Amino acid sequence: MAFEELKEQVWQANMGLVEAGLVLLTWGNASGADRDAGVMAIKPSGVDYENMRPDDMVVLSLKDGEVVEGTLRPSSDTPTHLSLYQSFEAIGSIVHTHSTYATSWAQAGREIPCMGTTHADNFYGAIPVTRDLTEAEIRGEYEKNTGRVIVERFSNGEPSVESVPAVLVPGHGPFAWGPSPMKAVENAIVLEEVARMALLAHSVNPNAQPLSQTLLDKHFLRKHGAGAYYGQTTKQ
Amino acid sequence: MAFEELKEQVWQANMGLVEAGLVLLTWGNASGADRDAGVMAIKPSGVDYENMRPDDMVVLSLKDGEVVEGTLRPSSDTPTHLSLYQSFEAIGSIVHTHSTYATSWAQAGREIPCMGTTHADNFYGAIPVTRDLTEAEIRGEYEKNTGRVIVERFSNGEPSVESVPAVLVPGHGPFAWGPSPMKAVENAIVLEEVARMALLAHSVNPNAQPLSQTLLDKHFLRKHGAGAYYGQTTKQ
Amino acid sequence: MAFEELKEQVWQANMGLVEAGLVLLTWGNASGADRDAGVMAIKPSGVDYENMRPDDMVVLSLKDGEVVEGTLRPSSDTPTHLSLYQSFEAIGSIVHTHSTYATSWAQAGREIPCMGTTHADNFYGAIPVTRDLTEAEIRGEYEKNTGRVIVERFSNGEPSVESVPAVLVPGHGPFAWGPSPMKAVENAIVLEEVARMALLAHSVNPNAQPLSQTLLDKHFLRKHGAGAYYGQTTKQ
Amino acid sequence: MAFEELKEQVWQANMGLVEAGLVLLTWGNASGADRDAGVMAIKPSGVDYENMRPDDMVVLSLKDGEVVEGTLRPSSDTPTHLSLYQSFEAIGSIVHTHSTYATSWAQAGREIPCMGTTHADNFYGAIPVTRDLTEAEIRGEYEKNTGRVIVERFSNGEPSVESVPAVLVPGHGPFAWGPSPMKAVENAIVLEEVARMALLAHSVNPNAQPLSQTLLDKHFLRKHGAGAYYGQTTKQ
Repeated sequence: MAFEELKEQVWQANMGLVEAGLVLLTWGNASGADRDAGVMAIKPSGVDYENMRPDDMVVLSLKDGEVVEGTLRPSSDTPTHLSLYQSFEAIGSIVHTHSTYATSWAQAGREIPCMGTTHADNFYGAIPVTRDLTEAEIRGEYEKNTGRVIVERFSNGEPSVESVPAVLVPGHGPFAWGPSPMKAVENAIVLEEVARMALLAHSVNPNAQPLSQTLLDKHFLRKHGAGAYYGQTTKQ
Repeated sequence: MAFEELKEQVWQANMGLVEAGLVLLTWGNASGADRDAGVMAIKPSGVDYENMRPDDMVVLSLKDGEVVEGTLRPSSDTPTHLSLYQSFEAIGSIVHTHSTYATSWAQAGREIPCMGTTHADNFYGAIPVTRDLTEAEIRGEYEKNTGRVIVERFSNGEPSVESVPAVLVPGHGPFAWGPSPMKAVENAIVLEEVARMALLAHSVNPNAQPLSQTLLDKHFLRKHGAGAYYGQTTKQ
Repeated sequence: MAFEELKEQVWQANMGLVEAGLVLLTWGNASGADRDAGVMAIKPSGVDYENMRPDDMVVLSLKDGEVVEGTLRPSSDTPTHLSLYQSFEAIGSIVHTHSTYATSWAQAGREIPCMGTTHADNFYGAIPVTRDLTEAEIRGEYEKNTGRVIVERFSNGEPSVESVPAVLVPGHGPFAWGPSPMKAVENAIVLEEVARMALLAHSVNPNAQPLSQTLLDKHFLRKHGAGAYYGQTTKQ
Repeated sequence: MAFEELKEQVWQANMGLVEAGLVLLTWGNASGADRDAGVMAIKPSGVDYENMRPDDMVVLSLKDGEVVEGTLRPSSDTPTHLSLYQSFEAIGSIVHTHSTYATSWAQAGREIPCMGTTHADNFYGAIPVTRDLTEAEIRGEYEKNTGRVIVERFSNGEPSVESVPAVLVPGHGPFAWGPSPMKAVENAIVLEEVARMALLAHSVNPNAQPLSQTLLDKHFLRKHGAGAYYGQTTKQ
């Protein structure tokens, strides 16, 4: 038995999605990487959250996706997670949900504009939408190709995966990530709330405009980077 | 005493509707069929969920609707359920709710388009709306005729009751079904969520388009049919 | 000590509004009448639901509104309740809330059209809106005049207080009633849900049409009146 | 150890925001002033509500903002609170949230019109929006300048901080206040609900009009000021 701590954290992240009301039934999945060990742990496919235990998490090689530990089949979205870990060293955990409002923006095929400081405190600009997968990409290695279009969207660094830790896959839903499982879940929670408020703000005023660059800079940078002054100094 | 297991499952399905927030007061009803025994069990009419017990379920003959077991009056929607069981062998359980979003689409007289993979994972295309009942059908055997228009809608197999296990009756609300009570409830839960997200997606973008056929095929068929690869192999 | 049962029922109705999520803070009030004793009991004004006990209900004469029992000041809306009891013998209980969706229709100054069978099962047609109070009526005996415009709206029997047991006061909110406290609360719950679904149905389809008269007749009359066949025969 | 009661009340106000569903994660903050002692107490920055205790509240001088008691860093919004206390003697407590509907109006850059008596019972007219901060104000002492634009908005007494105890900062969110922590939280709860109902009323009827001045006067003044007749005479 190994990877106890990783599996525990990944299990907690999966349970955190349920507690936050971001998943229904067996939907959604969270994973976490141990870069030193070269592995990721992920939720098994289609298992009830209620009966799921840390030991049910499936551990796979980050290099080739081979199962290293666990008896259950990993989430069918595993190739998407793997693709992101392989492309971006900064990603330590990934969560995928069909949370109501973020998924509605994905179904609308629209990026979520940064309408307020709630958004700017956590994401440095709009939540982007990937391009549609081609018919060949859908018919082929679909889940891997879903990872591919996400990687493609972030490949030029505008935005970077650090500055905007979430994306929408059109007609599908959101993926969010972070340095740790706890932070990835938090980003998924904030994403859902900013998706909801952006929709409502446009309901109040169809011509509502995104935040100015100056205000976006102020809010994102007071919580992130060298000049941050939010929270306790001893905080993670 | 017989049909204990059937009554227990049907009772659980009815209670599952309450837990999922799909019913208010005494609204809604779930039934289940035992094809070998030639019977169905259904919720009694207008009884509080709180006080309802498995033994309160009413058992009727699938052939003629005669009560076989039980002292309470069956749900007033029983003739609708009976009609569906008689017409479609594949249906093992039926649930009827007035869940908020699905009912709103029914009141709008609009089919629920397949806007995303959440929908495609469970329903192979739009949730159809039946035609309006005629004045004669309303004034006559109304509940039986409600079953009749549903049967009519699915009679040419486009869609089939297996590929799209739900329907909207205009001005009324949704019926959902499945091979088992647990699966019928699950379909009602998913129906409500896709109804909600389809409404919200159109609020974000009035010109939002349904999923491509290729993506619909991919998602529905990876969970259903011979090539399915979602969930655990030992899963039902 | 008298009126124990009436005060208990009225207290339960008030607590039922909280449980159903229809009131915030100290908002809302429920009352009940004992026609034989010639009294009504009502919630005290501005008291926390949490600490409220049956004995806190204030009992007043239905004839002149004089307090018969109780040490607290009755709800400031008491004159509105009194006016309704005095005008309509069929009313045995009244509840007033600022429930979100029904109040939004009241603020919009629009009657709630009967968009579906959920509505028709409980209300025999649209939920009407009273006329605006005049400036003199607002500046004068405001709460009594609020009762007056409601009475005026139902005075020609279209609708009657029995067939449509709820009304909206424009810019204010809903009042609902029934033969008993339990039934008045139930009507307030259904009113809120049909207000919500009518709004959503119009969001899906701005041209959505109300139910046909035939379907309205069918649904209302199968639950009310001589030919009712919904629920258990022994049911109240 | 001092200021025990103040810290206890401020802690309760912060927990009250969580209970009312107005804050997510570590968002939001509540403070309270002790005018006689010349201090304010406020929530520490970025601390989990779950683990927060009354003694974690940070006490600062109302004169210069110097920390008087407490080991944690105060909320990053402290300079905004301080600015309001310094400018308006009538303010005894301030709460800041990113509650969903009020924040959506702030993101839309629109004042919340007084659409009904729920609003008029608590706020004597529309909830105003401050002007945008200038680029220099954002880049400079941002939190202090946020206080400055709020003070500016209320400086001519139309409205006064007593008659409309809440404001929206555009692209950011609401601040609410009151004579005591309990009352400030209550105002934040009512603000969120009136923001929600104003949005929904306009969804029902885009041409819905605000309350008349006469009705606004009636409702606000029956609960506030010399002629108030709502609640119990012994009530605070």
